[in-house]
Amino acid sequence: MTRVLYGGKSASAEAWRDALLALKPDLNLVMPSDNYAPDDVDIVLYEPSGPIQDMTPYKNVAAIQSLWAGVETLLGNETLPTEPPLLRMVEDGLTFGMTEYVVGHVFRAHLGVIAQQADQAREIWGTWNPPLASDRRVGIIGLGALGRDSAEALAQLRFDVSGWSRTPKDISGVRCLSGEGGFQQIISESDILVLLAPLTPETENLINAKNLAAMPKGAHIINAARGQLIDEDALLVALDAGHIATATLDVMCTEPLPQGHPFWKHPKVTITPHIASVTRPETAAKTVITQVERFETGQPFLHKVCRERGY
Amino acid sequence: MTRVLYGGKSASAEAWRDALLALKPDLNLVMPSDNYAPDDVDIVLYEPSGPIQDMTPYKNVAAIQSLWAGVETLLGNETLPTEPPLLRMVEDGLTFGMTEYVVGHVFRAHLGVIAQQADQAREIWGTWNPPLASDRRVGIIGLGALGRDSAEALAQLRFDVSGWSRTPKDISGVRCLSGEGGFQQIISESDILVLLAPLTPETENLINAKNLAAMPKGAHIINAARGQLIDEDALLVALDAGHIATATLDVMCTEPLPQGHPFWKHPKVTITPHIASVTRPETAAKTVITQVERFETGQPFLHKVCRERGY
Repeated sequence: MTRVLYGGKSASAEAWRDALLALKPDLNLVMPSDNYAPDDVDIVLYEPSGPIQDMTPYKNVAAIQSLWAGVETLLGNETLPTEPPLLRMVEDGLTFGMTEYVVGHVFRAHLGVIAQQADQAREIWGTWNPPLASDRRVGIIGLGALGRDSAEALAQLRFDVSGWSRTPKDISGVRCLSGEGGFQQIISESDILVLLAPLTPETENLINAKNLAAMPKGAHIINAARGQLIDEDALLVALDAGHIATATLDVMCTEPLPQGHPFWKHPKVTITPHIASVTRPETAAKTVITQVERFETGQPFLHKVCRERGY
Repeated sequence: MTRVLYGGKSASAEAWRDALLALKPDLNLVMPSDNYAPDDVDIVLYEPSGPIQDMTPYKNVAAIQSLWAGVETLLGNETLPTEPPLLRMVEDGLTFGMTEYVVGHVFRAHLGVIAQQADQAREIWGTWNPPLASDRRVGIIGLGALGRDSAEALAQLRFDVSGWSRTPKDISGVRCLSGEGGFQQIISESDILVLLAPLTPETENLINAKNLAAMPKGAHIINAARGQLIDEDALLVALDAGHIATATLDVMCTEPLPQGHPFWKHPKVTITPHIASVTRPETAAKTVITQVERFETGQPFLHKVCRERGY
């Protein structure tokens, strides 16, 4: 019987237990406060802010299942085993929540809501009409589970959608680009650029002064990935110069965003408190149970992290 | 040869001429400043703010094609003939533009952007996460060409969508309600209520104090139809009492909204300057040419206004 240790935040422990046992009532689920032998744990459900940080006692573990989509923080934990795989969290609630955030904020940029609200504050009845979505170029950086779902939803909504990923992808209705040439193309052709790539040494500071300058004048940026993908000082310069119209940031280099940070009061910056996508036990339990069942039937685990790539 | 008189605003005349002649180069199109015999005009393209207001000289007209989706203002023109039909404007650009406005503002309410921006102004890093769209009930009042397209798009985006219309409708993925009982049900069960109904004696003041009180506490209202559907004083009372969370108004009883009107500075009200949906000559020309061709081949005109119903 597979033994699963819940190592997530205690605030979510009850929701996780309910969701997991609803799907598999006989699951051998233990909590950190339970009396259990670390040697007997098969799968650890892990997050960097959870109570289980030292992995060395879990000598016979078959996999570490991350509770987060992004794993760059987890990879910094030096007690993580190198042999048993680390598994990313891929689950419908997280994917759908992200798509809702992306679609909502793409429309907010597309419809010109920020400029209209500035008009409203000055009691100005404007005359500007947005173009149709089909005349609006949206670029998605990162075409993993999250980027793909967002790209498909935006294409369905008739936007002119391009996507970029490290390796070539093929998504119906989406112009898929890859490699360095593809990256230069997508940033130079996107009226609204959405960041959904993992944080790796290659994506750190991807949106720097040089690449910001290569974007179309008046472009909008939406970052729902990791703050470190953007050179924040360069972004402020590009916003103040009027080259970038607006930035919507769910993630920042320092979170929570420190008091007094210039992003807070910047009229062209929208801050959301890292809520674009959260793992929801109600839906994520299905992913965990799938991994348990694959382990029990001798099938390989899904969504293995590649340590070399960093995601 | 069908003679069409363009009676719309002169600012749009060139765009209309280009779009119509691109589709039908031999169209017999005349402009108000041209030398033509009113007796020879078959179809008048009409809008209340255009230069052609007195219809009495157009004795042999076969139809009056409105350039606007809403026709209640046109119906007030007493020189309009009662016999040849008045035709509503139904066209893809107008429909798609409306759907984009509705989807964008539904997401803005769903994601809690207005509350998050209030947090941002006070440098507060919030902790609230929106539910998934599937747990968000959206109600659409009015299921004509516009309401139907919006309802379908929102259902595709996984919202829990209900729609209400005067007469029963059937739309895949949408809970279709009708009649007075259906109306009471939809307003009592919608977290986000979108108004897309025509203005008629029955819909005037539809969202009054009584019906606002019947809505769920914390509900959001989006009005992209006509200002007169809402009792604006009652709405302000419901917003200030905290019963209605936010109102997004593209239309108001007086437009442009007068200086000093309480909507302008209200923290829970978003004003957009009647831009949710505009007729775009590039796409609307197709509808006009279709009507011309139906006339020439003896088929009945599309989208006839019913004067008794008022739309």
